[in-house]
Amino acid sequence: MAKPATASAPKTLPVSRFPVPKLQDMPDDIRTRIEAVQEKSGFIPNVFLVLAHRPDEFRAFMAYHDALMDKEGGLTKAEREMIVVATSAANQCQYCVIAHGAILRIRAKNPLIADQVAINYRKADITPRQRAMLDFAMKVALEAHTVGEEDFAGLRRHDFTDEDVWDVGAIAAFFALSNRMANLTAMRPNDEFYKLAR
Amino acid sequence: MAKPATASAPKTLPVSRFPVPKLQDMPDDIRTRIEAVQEKSGFIPNVFLVLAHRPDEFRAFMAYHDALMDKEGGLTKAEREMIVVATSAANQCQYCVIAHGAILRIRAKNPLIADQVAINYRKADITPRQRAMLDFAMKVALEAHTVGEEDFAGLRRHDFTDEDVWDVGAIAAFFALSNRMANLTAMRPNDEFYKLAR
Amino acid sequence: MAKPATASAPKTLPVSRFPVPKLQDMPDDIRTRIEAVQEKSGFIPNVFLVLAHRPDEFRAFMAYHDALMDKEGGLTKAEREMIVVATSAANQCQYCVIAHGAILRIRAKNPLIADQVAINYRKADITPRQRAMLDFAMKVALEAHTVGEEDFAGLRRHDFTDEDVWDVGAIAAFFALSNRMANLTAMRPNDEFYKLAR
Amino acid sequence: MAKPATASAPKTLPVSRFPVPKLQDMPDDIRTRIEAVQEKSGFIPNVFLVLAHRPDEFRAFMAYHDALMDKEGGLTKAEREMIVVATSAANQCQYCVIAHGAILRIRAKNPLIADQVAINYRKADITPRQRAMLDFAMKVALEAHTVGEEDFAGLRRHDFTDEDVWDVGAIAAFFALSNRMANLTAMRPNDEFYKLAR
Amino acid sequence: MAKPATASAPKTLPVSRFPVPKLQDMPDDIRTRIEAVQEKSGFIPNVFLVLAHRPDEFRAFMAYHDALMDKEGGLTKAEREMIVVATSAANQCQYCVIAHGAILRIRAKNPLIADQVAINYRKADITPRQRAMLDFAMKVALEAHTVGEEDFAGLRRHDFTDEDVWDVGAIAAFFALSNRMANLTAMRPNDEFYKLAR
Amino acid sequence: MAKPATASAPKTLPVSRFPVPKLQDMPDDIRTRIEAVQEKSGFIPNVFLVLAHRPDEFRAFMAYHDALMDKEGGLTKAEREMIVVATSAANQCQYCVIAHGAILRIRAKNPLIADQVAINYRKADITPRQRAMLDFAMKVALEAHTVGEEDFAGLRRHDFTDEDVWDVGAIAAFFALSNRMANLTAMRPNDEFYKLAR
Repeated sequence: MAKPATASAPKTLPVSRFPVPKLQDMPDDIRTRIEAVQEKSGFIPNVFLVLAHRPDEFRAFMAYHDALMDKEGGLTKAEREMIVVATSAANQCQYCVIAHGAILRIRAKNPLIADQVAINYRKADITPRQRAMLDFAMKVALEAHTVGEEDFAGLRRHDFTDEDVWDVGAIAAFFALSNRMANLTAMRPNDEFYKLAR
Repeated sequence: MAKPATASAPKTLPVSRFPVPKLQDMPDDIRTRIEAVQEKSGFIPNVFLVLAHRPDEFRAFMAYHDALMDKEGGLTKAEREMIVVATSAANQCQYCVIAHGAILRIRAKNPLIADQVAINYRKADITPRQRAMLDFAMKVALEAHTVGEEDFAGLRRHDFTDEDVWDVGAIAAFFALSNRMANLTAMRPNDEFYKLAR
Repeated sequence: MAKPATASAPKTLPVSRFPVPKLQDMPDDIRTRIEAVQEKSGFIPNVFLVLAHRPDEFRAFMAYHDALMDKEGGLTKAEREMIVVATSAANQCQYCVIAHGAILRIRAKNPLIADQVAINYRKADITPRQRAMLDFAMKVALEAHTVGEEDFAGLRRHDFTDEDVWDVGAIAAFFALSNRMANLTAMRPNDEFYKLAR
Repeated sequence: MAKPATASAPKTLPVSRFPVPKLQDMPDDIRTRIEAVQEKSGFIPNVFLVLAHRPDEFRAFMAYHDALMDKEGGLTKAEREMIVVATSAANQCQYCVIAHGAILRIRAKNPLIADQVAINYRKADITPRQRAMLDFAMKVALEAHTVGEEDFAGLRRHDFTDEDVWDVGAIAAFFALSNRMANLTAMRPNDEFYKLAR
Repeated sequence: MAKPATASAPKTLPVSRFPVPKLQDMPDDIRTRIEAVQEKSGFIPNVFLVLAHRPDEFRAFMAYHDALMDKEGGLTKAEREMIVVATSAANQCQYCVIAHGAILRIRAKNPLIADQVAINYRKADITPRQRAMLDFAMKVALEAHTVGEEDFAGLRRHDFTDEDVWDVGAIAAFFALSNRMANLTAMRPNDEFYKLAR
Repeated sequence: MAKPATASAPKTLPVSRFPVPKLQDMPDDIRTRIEAVQEKSGFIPNVFLVLAHRPDEFRAFMAYHDALMDKEGGLTKAEREMIVVATSAANQCQYCVIAHGAILRIRAKNPLIADQVAINYRKADITPRQRAMLDFAMKVALEAHTVGEEDFAGLRRHDFTDEDVWDVGAIAAFFALSNRMANLTAMRPNDEFYKLAR
């Protein structure tokens, strides 16, 4: 919050309000997972460093994430990332919009889609089925107490199975958690994400 | 949604919009955990049955829950449950308010506290420190994007450490997920919870 | 706001921010009414004591209440109480939710219904007709300026007469007043209400 | 909702969605009160006709109104009307803003004040004490659940006694009821009010 | 904010938070325009004086205003003013509601219409077509990001051409600017407007 | 709304819901201005094409824009663009966030700043003075009716002159108009903007 905007933010800005452990001080399983990501991506996404401050929560978070985002099913990987980007934008979560925006551009092979979905998904270059999916995801994100049978019926008309609807809702629900953790910890997105796949 | 209110709801109302597996069909680790809870509580809280439909998500959910709710730290167990009840009421989550309301009454040894916190925590019989804790938890639940250093400073004045603040925020964040899953699945609270510890 | 939550709230906590008159100092008609309630219920609901500070307002309040809640008509007494509980929860009114929650449990002979209606009436064990009634009551409570002919038409399809609709709307309107008075005066619910008819 | 805007609304537009009794069919006490108003004002304000459909509610409503608006105390009559106009505008209540706007102009001997208070009371020609009074009245009207000791303390600094604060809050609360009844019944303001005291 | 409400506001209250230039110090084109308005109306509406502090913005503002409000097309001049009054009331803009309310009364030859539209346009004496127009204008004013093809289709059913819809939306958009400038500058409506055409 | 997200959006997607004139059919002054922009930027930003459908509105819009964005004063050009990006994101305006995000990156010589300000300006790499500026701009954008002297006083403490405050507020006000026009017309951002200056 202290650096002038007229110069690139230096790499040394804090990535969390809380202490960030060093790689060598982390439990083996966590360090191993992080090193695998680093090898694949070329850098360590800050979410791993920030959450490693609490190893048990780290493990549960990553297990939940993988269960929802890496599974097979009626939603493509790009569609799962659309849900993340749209709902995280509604929650004003800088880390999730920027990091998952990059992943969405990669998954969708579309350099425009992430910004469109983040700013106003109603005007994004998406199909009517994807529009219905995002309308429902936003309902879960913002007013889940009003979800009712009519929502399930509407999604079935777009050929979503009930298992698909669980996926849509559960991704929105998981990032309700994730967005709040990122805003709580002031989790800083890595500079690398901004430009990926543009 | 179909039974008249003038008669006690029969026990056979569905507990989820989604399929609920039978105990004998669940993976061993999940069934074992559920049987342990059943032995301790005398009944199986429906959250276990509803989420067992997705074993990987079940495991991650329970691990996350335990990491936040069963740990030592600057918050009492009653205070952790207060956070759950206040934020779940704001999210209109029937399962979480009723089930965790019962747990809060037990933990606080106070038959009035759960209803007070659920309806308007500002008028509950709590200490000023607990009031500050709940104000912050509600901020994380409802507008986490506005959390800033001044919130941390305010909580330090009530003798919360930064680790305590992580706990408060993380519990609010985890139940942001939990409330949405309960509303998505139309998770029904067990009848047993309503009367516990009154 | 000052007592720790880990002990039952003592009976001596104030029931109002304002002075509360003694029974013997009240005008005869008010004292007589209160004694009748006390004889019937076994205790004096605090609303009587709190409002007795202003005898003229007390009399008008009770007359209005009785005109709406004790009359014959197309709504059962349980249904009238459902309207009170749902709208009072939306207004975060501790006194009304707890006191009328107890009355609702008694009238409906259902120990679960009050908590269900208070937390999220959309998931309560009620009929579709009752759901339509509560949807309308919430509209009057929260955005009465948008009420239009289409709302009346919708309620007629559920066999509500126009007189019934007046009742639904007027109860929601009267408790808009009542909820605000309770929050203004910090009216404390009697401990007795919490456990009644559970 | 059916007449073109380019011609004066004819006098025969309905004043209520509900049946309106004839003067001669009303109970004596109600007819007498209405005739007294008619004699004093030169016309019958429609609120009397609309609410006379329900005599018991009529009597309670008028008794409550008089108890709050005609009493002595720390608020001037103009100030009481300011509270009505500001909160009724927030509730988009056509009858109350137009009828009580006229009364406010008369009481304040100020032809501008009613429109100013209705549209944005923060920019009206009022004193800082009146501004504090209206800020609190709006809080009671719109979010009474957040009223706390700090509000009372703030008003004391402007020389409001606690009894004055009850008056401010109770007027806002009573018109919360009144506004909802007017919107429920589609109560039409008399044409006479628009031009009074301009 | 400093004058008591019990006396007419003196004419010397400031019309802007910012400096207001004297007529003789204004650029010729601006002074000429203002003198023409003064000759026609009998007074200088304060918006001209307040915005003249910034001549380039003044010129653009007036050009934009005239392009939208003085043109031919499918909307009557009264209808254009209805849009201004309804959206300006939603934005709590004192200057625009009072000044354009007067113009609306003149254009519609209806002394009641401006107050009706300002307080709750849903209950104003307007045609169903005008109601649809105002519903759309309010959508543009308050949540333009949700405008979609279904809105255009709905307006076509009321015989609005697409060019008419541009006009409705553009007027709502222009007064979104205008309302914000008036609230920023604390622009004071001239006393003359209040009583015009009543 | 019809193209799958898995392929780059083709260049032929419509840029407006309304007819877009050809360059050669535009009035000379408009065509000249557009050709100058095209020469400088290498492409024609769609806002010019979309608004050229209404030449008078086009001219007023551009004159207003230039009066606010190209002037000298206490705000840097980058700061002016920050105001545009932050308030346009709050209004979910795709065109303005994407086009002015590109301009902000160029003006600030900072490839990260636009996304940060758009998603959650409270966590952007900006100075406390810029944070205060954006807090005020958001207030003008979202609740200008609450702007008061205390806001001006707060900005003076950050060394903003009253003329600077006019600039901040007027830019937020102008883009309140601009955002609504873009959402009304479904104005499509040029593909070129997404990648500029990253």
